[in-house]
Amino acid sequence: MIDNSNSALHEKDGIPQPETTNKNSAKKIKLNRRKHPTVNEFVTGILNGNITFLSRAITLVESTNKNHQKKANEILEQCLPYANKSVRIGITGVPGVGKSTFIETFGKHLTGLGKKVAVLAVDPSSSVNKGSILGDKTRMEQLVTDENAFIRPSPSGTSLGGVAQKTRESIILCEAAGFDTIIIETVGVGQSETAVHSMVDFFLLLKLFGAGDELQGIKRGIIEMADAIVINKADGDNIKNAKIAKVAFTKALHLYPPKENGWQPKVLTASALNNLGIEKIQKMIWEYINLSKENDFFNKKRNQQNKHWLYATIEQELKSRFYDDSKTKNLLPLEISKLENGKTTPFNAAKRLLDLQ
Amino acid sequence: MIDNSNSALHEKDGIPQPETTNKNSAKKIKLNRRKHPTVNEFVTGILNGNITFLSRAITLVESTNKNHQKKANEILEQCLPYANKSVRIGITGVPGVGKSTFIETFGKHLTGLGKKVAVLAVDPSSSVNKGSILGDKTRMEQLVTDENAFIRPSPSGTSLGGVAQKTRESIILCEAAGFDTIIIETVGVGQSETAVHSMVDFFLLLKLFGAGDELQGIKRGIIEMADAIVINKADGDNIKNAKIAKVAFTKALHLYPPKENGWQPKVLTASALNNLGIEKIQKMIWEYINLSKENDFFNKKRNQQNKHWLYATIEQELKSRFYDDSKTKNLLPLEISKLENGKTTPFNAAKRLLDLQ
Repeated sequence: MIDNSNSALHEKDGIPQPETTNKNSAKKIKLNRRKHPTVNEFVTGILNGNITFLSRAITLVESTNKNHQKKANEILEQCLPYANKSVRIGITGVPGVGKSTFIETFGKHLTGLGKKVAVLAVDPSSSVNKGSILGDKTRMEQLVTDENAFIRPSPSGTSLGGVAQKTRESIILCEAAGFDTIIIETVGVGQSETAVHSMVDFFLLLKLFGAGDELQGIKRGIIEMADAIVINKADGDNIKNAKIAKVAFTKALHLYPPKENGWQPKVLTASALNNLGIEKIQKMIWEYINLSKENDFFNKKRNQQNKHWLYATIEQELKSRFYDDSKTKNLLPLEISKLENGKTTPFNAAKRLLDLQ
Repeated sequence: MIDNSNSALHEKDGIPQPETTNKNSAKKIKLNRRKHPTVNEFVTGILNGNITFLSRAITLVESTNKNHQKKANEILEQCLPYANKSVRIGITGVPGVGKSTFIETFGKHLTGLGKKVAVLAVDPSSSVNKGSILGDKTRMEQLVTDENAFIRPSPSGTSLGGVAQKTRESIILCEAAGFDTIIIETVGVGQSETAVHSMVDFFLLLKLFGAGDELQGIKRGIIEMADAIVINKADGDNIKNAKIAKVAFTKALHLYPPKENGWQPKVLTASALNNLGIEKIQKMIWEYINLSKENDFFNKKRNQQNKHWLYATIEQELKSRFYDDSKTKNLLPLEISKLENGKTTPFNAAKRLLDLQ
């Protein structure tokens, strides 16, 4: 099913109504309860796998309203003990590589195995109005009607940090609702791949074969992050070229040392459109997960990721507070100008700006 | 010449004596003036190329004493108009690759061309007492006695940010003193290569050939930073293997897009010990510099680097202030523990820590 209910809470003033205690209006109580479930109702609903509660809780997570955020935080902390048990898979690739088709086929394969699949996205450039990468329902026709799949478009927001935080919190809610496989799609704008890499257990890069120059123009750092590269659209006349690309990528991956857990990143070919190579990919990912769990790398990595997000959030907020301060805003352009004209050093300029605080 | 005078200022209390106005003791005035030159005397001395003043000014830059730092900042700002005119070259490579011998031979070649060469270092692990990578004079026997060379060991310090700042400020002083070529050596501990890359015009990676696995185990990100790779110790029986390594590195470099200024990183071989290939390397670097100056990339990059250091300094200081705060220090371990036990999310933990401020 697809969830586009980003605006499920309709309060225009942004303040949810308190649970009414008006004894004279049982009907009103019921209505208000439906409109504004309590934290406990949210948690119970989510733990029962109720998709409406899940969707509305995610909407609270995504809200910029302080009361919503407070409620979201309470829901999150109560859901935490039931979260953390899924396999989290990040998928990236440039537009045109076939991400939607791949996730559709891959997702159907997973639900066919009895898994419950949530698909989330990190796309800092998206907005509710403009529609996000997952907003176009027609691109995942089969998965959206699958009862064991839950698709949620990217939260809106201009800051990657904000979008990534909301997605990470949504993962917790999806896991508490019983989804055992979380797919995070990213379109790879700016640093969004790094953000997604820091919230998943397995990071998959989708590529197309080219004219022998597959590796030219590839975004710096992506290959180092990938746990696997899948060359998509490997069907018909393309199979030969896909195999050439596979050799090139395998060589490229061997330029890097194996991952911390001893994993040597793999290169596979697939045709999502024709459902070719999908099972092999699924088996590879679970092989990786099992290996990681055996040597305890799985928990270690998730712990590292949690700490990463703790520190990243703090540092992002410290920067925002500093650069949004009106005193900084006034002085910064003057110091930059001095710097550009060779009148000061970066360190003296920094000192003067910091002395404002 | 080598400069190991990190402790040229001997004030035990750390406070330089004010210039005395005692009319009764001309001798004392002279002595004190020698011991504690004024800012103007420092600047005049440096601009005249006086190495004693240069060394002592660098010692002020490296001092942790606030009065010294204030004086150093005044000297730096007065020297700035005369700085910025050199070619700055970063050199990195693992221990054993022959960095010292390479810098010795390369430096001698440069002074032979009439250039004035300053060699600085960034080694966050060094300390004055333990001796730094450039501290061992015997490793650059010829360069240390060269009148047109100035060698200064890495400033001491445990934080890379601090060491890097001091080195960057020392570059300004060396340039003002007439050094037209600045070589920054780094041993490549932690992020020190990234720091050096952000303060030089040209970044050179020294490598050895291996048993066909040259690229295995190479530090992530280094190849992307390199403007050139030089395979050292290419002499005698080694020449064949060095050529094989050259092919492997050339292929690896081609995996990345060309640099912003259109430069395609080069791979060369050299034997610093036998003075082979050194002239070619020098010509390549100046070819790069000329190209960069023609298309104005040179100034653009230095401007970017200045801004990078401005922002990096600010952000480093914001973090220090936050994490050194006693309230943070008390709460952080508790929040980390909660996080590790699945009792909170990274974002809620961050919020509670930030709310302390």
